[in-house]
Amino acid sequence: MSDRPLVAVLGGGQLGRMLGIAGLPLGVTLRFLDPSPEAGARAVGELVVGELDDETAVARVADGADVVTYEWEGVPADGPRAITTTIPVRPAPVALEVAQDRVAEKETFTRLGIDVAAFVAIDAADDVPAALEAVGLPAVVKTRRGGYDGKGQRVVGSTEDAGGVWDALGGVPLVAEAHVPFDRELSVLAARAVDGSTACYPLVENVHAAGILRTSFGPARGLTEELQSAGETIAARLLDDLDYVGVLAVELFERDGALLANEMAPRVHNSGHWTIEGAHTSQFEQHLRAVLGWPLGRADARGSTAVINCIGHMADPSTVLAVPGAHVHDYAKSPRPGRKVGHVTIVADDEATLAARVAQVRAIDPDDRA
Amino acid sequence: MSDRPLVAVLGGGQLGRMLGIAGLPLGVTLRFLDPSPEAGARAVGELVVGELDDETAVARVADGADVVTYEWEGVPADGPRAITTTIPVRPAPVALEVAQDRVAEKETFTRLGIDVAAFVAIDAADDVPAALEAVGLPAVVKTRRGGYDGKGQRVVGSTEDAGGVWDALGGVPLVAEAHVPFDRELSVLAARAVDGSTACYPLVENVHAAGILRTSFGPARGLTEELQSAGETIAARLLDDLDYVGVLAVELFERDGALLANEMAPRVHNSGHWTIEGAHTSQFEQHLRAVLGWPLGRADARGSTAVINCIGHMADPSTVLAVPGAHVHDYAKSPRPGRKVGHVTIVADDEATLAARVAQVRAIDPDDRA
Repeated sequence: MSDRPLVAVLGGGQLGRMLGIAGLPLGVTLRFLDPSPEAGARAVGELVVGELDDETAVARVADGADVVTYEWEGVPADGPRAITTTIPVRPAPVALEVAQDRVAEKETFTRLGIDVAAFVAIDAADDVPAALEAVGLPAVVKTRRGGYDGKGQRVVGSTEDAGGVWDALGGVPLVAEAHVPFDRELSVLAARAVDGSTACYPLVENVHAAGILRTSFGPARGLTEELQSAGETIAARLLDDLDYVGVLAVELFERDGALLANEMAPRVHNSGHWTIEGAHTSQFEQHLRAVLGWPLGRADARGSTAVINCIGHMADPSTVLAVPGAHVHDYAKSPRPGRKVGHVTIVADDEATLAARVAQVRAIDPDDRA
Repeated sequence: MSDRPLVAVLGGGQLGRMLGIAGLPLGVTLRFLDPSPEAGARAVGELVVGELDDETAVARVADGADVVTYEWEGVPADGPRAITTTIPVRPAPVALEVAQDRVAEKETFTRLGIDVAAFVAIDAADDVPAALEAVGLPAVVKTRRGGYDGKGQRVVGSTEDAGGVWDALGGVPLVAEAHVPFDRELSVLAARAVDGSTACYPLVENVHAAGILRTSFGPARGLTEELQSAGETIAARLLDDLDYVGVLAVELFERDGALLANEMAPRVHNSGHWTIEGAHTSQFEQHLRAVLGWPLGRADARGSTAVINCIGHMADPSTVLAVPGAHVHDYAKSPRPGRKVGHVTIVADDEATLAARVAQVRAIDPDDRA
């Protein structure tokens, strides 16, 4: 191929960096837009420094690109939408709009027959009591927009707790959700190509602490065909409905063997890092293949894989790599309490061996509690 | 880890580029020395433009590095040796000297009890007849130094052919080798860490045409434990004798189930590209782990893998990636007849499936005959 493609990426954090690493063997050049001149993706492509809500900056990074995509779902849809007449934007900006608004997101899930926890939109302080009564207590109240890693949300256990929630969350539109006593958190990642073909990864199991994803297991431990099939159905409905191109992640709750959708991310996802070593095609390569109009790769697993996020400090490779099957992924960030600075992946031949090796890594590199 | 290591690499071609790609997740910065300002490794690290036999340039690229290594065995040993007093050079420069001189190389093999084809050094035109008589006809006459991809060598089938061989090969010191009617060509890649521990990959099977490596199968098709054990013994003897640190490749001939050593390369190797997707740790990550003093990774295979070299032109990802298990590796070079510009890797669950998929790739992207 003499004309190597150029992909413009809105956002240049660690997800962009890992997209760029995947792009190098593919002969794909990436150009990133990020507000920080220190953005981690600068090591693997051209970096345009600018705000993601600056339509001029978006147009500049897109100029001459074969396709525009994003590694952060907070990008305002107007910028990407303005350029869709001249350059393909994949996934289409509607996916951003759905993902940015928890009510639109849940309404989309519901319309597609995907189960969600009961929810009611809250547009004013006066709406709070009725909303909580409708969904029942305990409830989780979240800002309709923004919020991540447990920020922008409150658990309301009693009517007394409910009084301050509007002000505590900043006086912005909210959504009340029934609190789901789930058995565990999972996610499903799947990709859809330009020709409509899809490839779904095995479901991932995600273990959070203090609102931050600590450990993912891919495939989810003890994953059954029934659960996988249920997850694939959820992903397939969303991919087709949104005429989606690229990798999509949907966070799920498992309860009594059934799945509820929590939220979606129209991009490569933290819970998909296991695919770099643990699946036949990494989520990053898969996303690039999809948005470039290329065929998708195999999405099946290779053994049993865990990803341990490095929070606050990077694991020391000189010690952690002694664990068989361990690989380190350093995002080239400065250490800071609570900051995700990298991850350690462990691949094993079976779940029992994996559990032992995860314990070995944790003993060598104890978790920071954020 | 707050102090991220800096590795200086002598040479910045595709091997350097793939070392750099492996270095990114490890948080390792690479700085390359290469005579070409267009060297492919420039996309993944700092590039110092300079000659590899310029000791000042070698000192400059090494300045401030934690370790110096190389991705080309033609680097004159004097430059690296001059800096060993201040910065570790891994593997040690003696490995360069052995690999650069076919006579020293074969003498090393022989001293270590590693079988080689009969050989005799030729220092002058007058030595040719006696040397050929000693090794027998047909013989292969090669330049003692330099030469790759079938260049710098002649097959001598009769005493009449022998007359012009000294002049035809440039009037430089030669070595005559008995022509080995081998069954197939294999190679063994293994790594040794600073602490002396080693990890050996499954033997690779290499299929050449017109003197250029076209296809590698990792593991070698039908690999037996006996053959693997014989290959590991060869690698282990060399690694220990040379007090080697890093990845070493040894090219082998298989004949009637026994192995003869042909030559060694003190670096990552073209025949090891299958390890990127096909082994638990790629040769590039393994080399970096070794030279940095970190623990080695698992070297066992993951399924059956083939690497098809792209000679003259890069395979088109938009078509080749439709083959299940296919991945492309573009070295970002301009196409040119006979030039290695990339490779396609195919991973399958078994050898029969792999054979079918290699045929699919060849049908989509027919081989250029150089």
